[in-house]
Amino acid sequence: MPQPREPPKLPSSYNTLPFTQIKTEHYEADPSIIILTLYRPKNHNAFTLIMMVELEEAYAMFDIDDRVKCIVFTGRGNIFCAGADLDVGFVGGEELVTEHRDGGGRVALAIHHCRKPTIGALQGSAVGIGITMTLPMNIRIAYASSKIGFVFARRGLVLEACSSFFLPRLIGHSRAMQVVTTGSTYLASDPVWGGLFAETLEKREDVLPRALEIAKDVVRNTSSVSTYLMKEMMFRDKGSPEKTHLLDSRLIYELFSSGDNKEGVKSFMEKRPPQFSGTMDNTPLSAYPWWDPVDVVRRPRIEGEGKPKL
Amino acid sequence: MPQPREPPKLPSSYNTLPFTQIKTEHYEADPSIIILTLYRPKNHNAFTLIMMVELEEAYAMFDIDDRVKCIVFTGRGNIFCAGADLDVGFVGGEELVTEHRDGGGRVALAIHHCRKPTIGALQGSAVGIGITMTLPMNIRIAYASSKIGFVFARRGLVLEACSSFFLPRLIGHSRAMQVVTTGSTYLASDPVWGGLFAETLEKREDVLPRALEIAKDVVRNTSSVSTYLMKEMMFRDKGSPEKTHLLDSRLIYELFSSGDNKEGVKSFMEKRPPQFSGTMDNTPLSAYPWWDPVDVVRRPRIEGEGKPKL
Amino acid sequence: MPQPREPPKLPSSYNTLPFTQIKTEHYEADPSIIILTLYRPKNHNAFTLIMMVELEEAYAMFDIDDRVKCIVFTGRGNIFCAGADLDVGFVGGEELVTEHRDGGGRVALAIHHCRKPTIGALQGSAVGIGITMTLPMNIRIAYASSKIGFVFARRGLVLEACSSFFLPRLIGHSRAMQVVTTGSTYLASDPVWGGLFAETLEKREDVLPRALEIAKDVVRNTSSVSTYLMKEMMFRDKGSPEKTHLLDSRLIYELFSSGDNKEGVKSFMEKRPPQFSGTMDNTPLSAYPWWDPVDVVRRPRIEGEGKPKL
Repeated sequence: MPQPREPPKLPSSYNTLPFTQIKTEHYEADPSIIILTLYRPKNHNAFTLIMMVELEEAYAMFDIDDRVKCIVFTGRGNIFCAGADLDVGFVGGEELVTEHRDGGGRVALAIHHCRKPTIGALQGSAVGIGITMTLPMNIRIAYASSKIGFVFARRGLVLEACSSFFLPRLIGHSRAMQVVTTGSTYLASDPVWGGLFAETLEKREDVLPRALEIAKDVVRNTSSVSTYLMKEMMFRDKGSPEKTHLLDSRLIYELFSSGDNKEGVKSFMEKRPPQFSGTMDNTPLSAYPWWDPVDVVRRPRIEGEGKPKL
Repeated sequence: MPQPREPPKLPSSYNTLPFTQIKTEHYEADPSIIILTLYRPKNHNAFTLIMMVELEEAYAMFDIDDRVKCIVFTGRGNIFCAGADLDVGFVGGEELVTEHRDGGGRVALAIHHCRKPTIGALQGSAVGIGITMTLPMNIRIAYASSKIGFVFARRGLVLEACSSFFLPRLIGHSRAMQVVTTGSTYLASDPVWGGLFAETLEKREDVLPRALEIAKDVVRNTSSVSTYLMKEMMFRDKGSPEKTHLLDSRLIYELFSSGDNKEGVKSFMEKRPPQFSGTMDNTPLSAYPWWDPVDVVRRPRIEGEGKPKL
Repeated sequence: MPQPREPPKLPSSYNTLPFTQIKTEHYEADPSIIILTLYRPKNHNAFTLIMMVELEEAYAMFDIDDRVKCIVFTGRGNIFCAGADLDVGFVGGEELVTEHRDGGGRVALAIHHCRKPTIGALQGSAVGIGITMTLPMNIRIAYASSKIGFVFARRGLVLEACSSFFLPRLIGHSRAMQVVTTGSTYLASDPVWGGLFAETLEKREDVLPRALEIAKDVVRNTSSVSTYLMKEMMFRDKGSPEKTHLLDSRLIYELFSSGDNKEGVKSFMEKRPPQFSGTMDNTPLSAYPWWDPVDVVRRPRIEGEGKPKL
């Protein structure tokens, strides 16, 4: 769920936005699909504060723009993202330790909070923030020979971008411990990645077209209310089968009255593609949200967390 | 742990119970193994309220019947279960949103609360509730060409039957996100399922015999007190290695005095099969249960869950 | 994080310690790597209380000895560890149920609390405590034909050594449920183990050399402050992406000033191996520890855990 904020003004077309380090465009074959491209090819798409702000802005728009149904996220050139731009450096400001917000985490949360699914199309290597920013995405596919690395231990750093939350959940703690302990890069096709990549493709140029195919299938056949809620149900789970039962019983009961469920069943019976028009705003759900939002901007003292932290 | 309830009257034989949409029978070669079959072959074993009630009743008996050691759960015909019966519809009653209990979840909890292991024998395709009801089982095997689908996003619905709790724990969030985002069906042999199926078999007719073989091995060699407790230890875990140590130290200390442990060690030393006779009722364990039971029937206000829910 | 205790006196060389059931030695090619060997080859390295005490003592030293950078943990002979020594028996003392501490858990916690990474080199079969004690290690490799078994259900016991915490996190609940329900042994190369073993090798005699190669790579290229913190970040996670963001933002902010981060970036720019000298003691981190330590020795009443346990 997005944090409270001034809603951004929506553009008439994503093709014309004045971003400088990313590029957004409507997919011609289906304009409800946005192709977002990291666009610093001369710098291996290395991550900067400007790129961070642009990604946050773009995702804030995707989140509230009913025209946008799915985002395909790729990189320009032969590298997806080489990590943080070390020439630029990590920290610029004069903030206190309790005020700092990791830039990778800001992007990861922007993607995670967006109520539309993202398909990652890693057309090349992804290292550090280059790979951690993809962890909140719904599906990742990659060029098989891409090098993927959680290299933090080799720089004297630690997992950032909320990746200590995402990585072990995505691939299990055994594989996660291995890749962070060595800090090595492994090919995207290496079995160490477990199910991290839904597909790995032998040809780099096939990655974006295949991701667009998946996106078309998702947009054509699924309700984005469903995919958003299921993401939250799995990542903000209630911790026991019984509490999950109490939650999903309520959600399902109310969804039975929703337009998307009626259309989903009707189109299935009539053997035709569905026409879903549900959004989180036009679908009343009394149990949503079922978690206590955490305001990462104003950093409230977190209750029930044991001794106060400095 | 089962919810408080009137204990059901146990039948002299499970072969004679008057169920109409499921069938229960003792396995001839070992009557302590029950074969439970979804039995609506003309309707692809589609799930109904009657089937739900019958499954709940059957599992309530298995739970308390000391003669029952293991359940093998399969379907009649070429489909394991095609999902909820859309002809019958989802909701019948006039209950409030806060009263509704998802039918799939009632079955999932009945299976999860049963203190005997269940082996799923998916002899054919399983979609929607057809697959989510299998998630609490101990082991699943499947016909390799079965189609398996978490199709909820294609119907405008969400994960039910507590499956947002089980699915990511069973196969990891990466694979789980993929299958719920596409809502597609995948063959049981598809690597997307990770370890969901212990085995996939090339011939449909081999599935039930192989499941019975596994059940015989489990019944012959293991203590059902052990398998039940370990299931709870893993699904109701204490959240840290230290708290787990405090719990398992207590459980193990008391199990050292149990008949099953004595017999387990003795039979191992004497190189003969064990004769386990332990049950949760004749095995005193002062630390059990180590969790706060949630009454899903009377739906108490849940404490410590943040703001009150409507 | 280690429990409060009298710091052990550090030896001038680990080669000379008077252990009787384990052996410790410096790896000649890099003395900062310790080779720890279970050393009861006539008894298949079966686990005893003496072995437990020696492992706890050794790991307490590794934890605080700045000269030690990595531990490679193996067994003497053709068996890694055959489990608890049944000839010796499980319990010796006259303690109360609330005082007993599972011996396997004491070793698992000693390994888990040690702030240096451990590489498991399973040169042969590992059963019961033989495999559960390896679960807190950072990386495990094994001889492919080793038999690996969580045999507890066959002895009337349950998962010990905190393994109900570790096992499902490492390989997922589906695989974990399978191996504990059958209680069977499976070859280390069996797909049921998922990512439990980073590598399985065809020749037994290759296992230790390969583990030492991995250890050399880890010691040469990574900061042990990083690997230790990332292990804790993943196993003591904050439960939501937002809370993780608040934590990792603080850790990263302070690590930007650390010697290891400066050296990590500098050596990377200069394309030379890093010389990390950071330790948890010389790296100030105001957010560490971010969890409430549990004193397993004095067993405090645990707050916020529902009804008091006996």
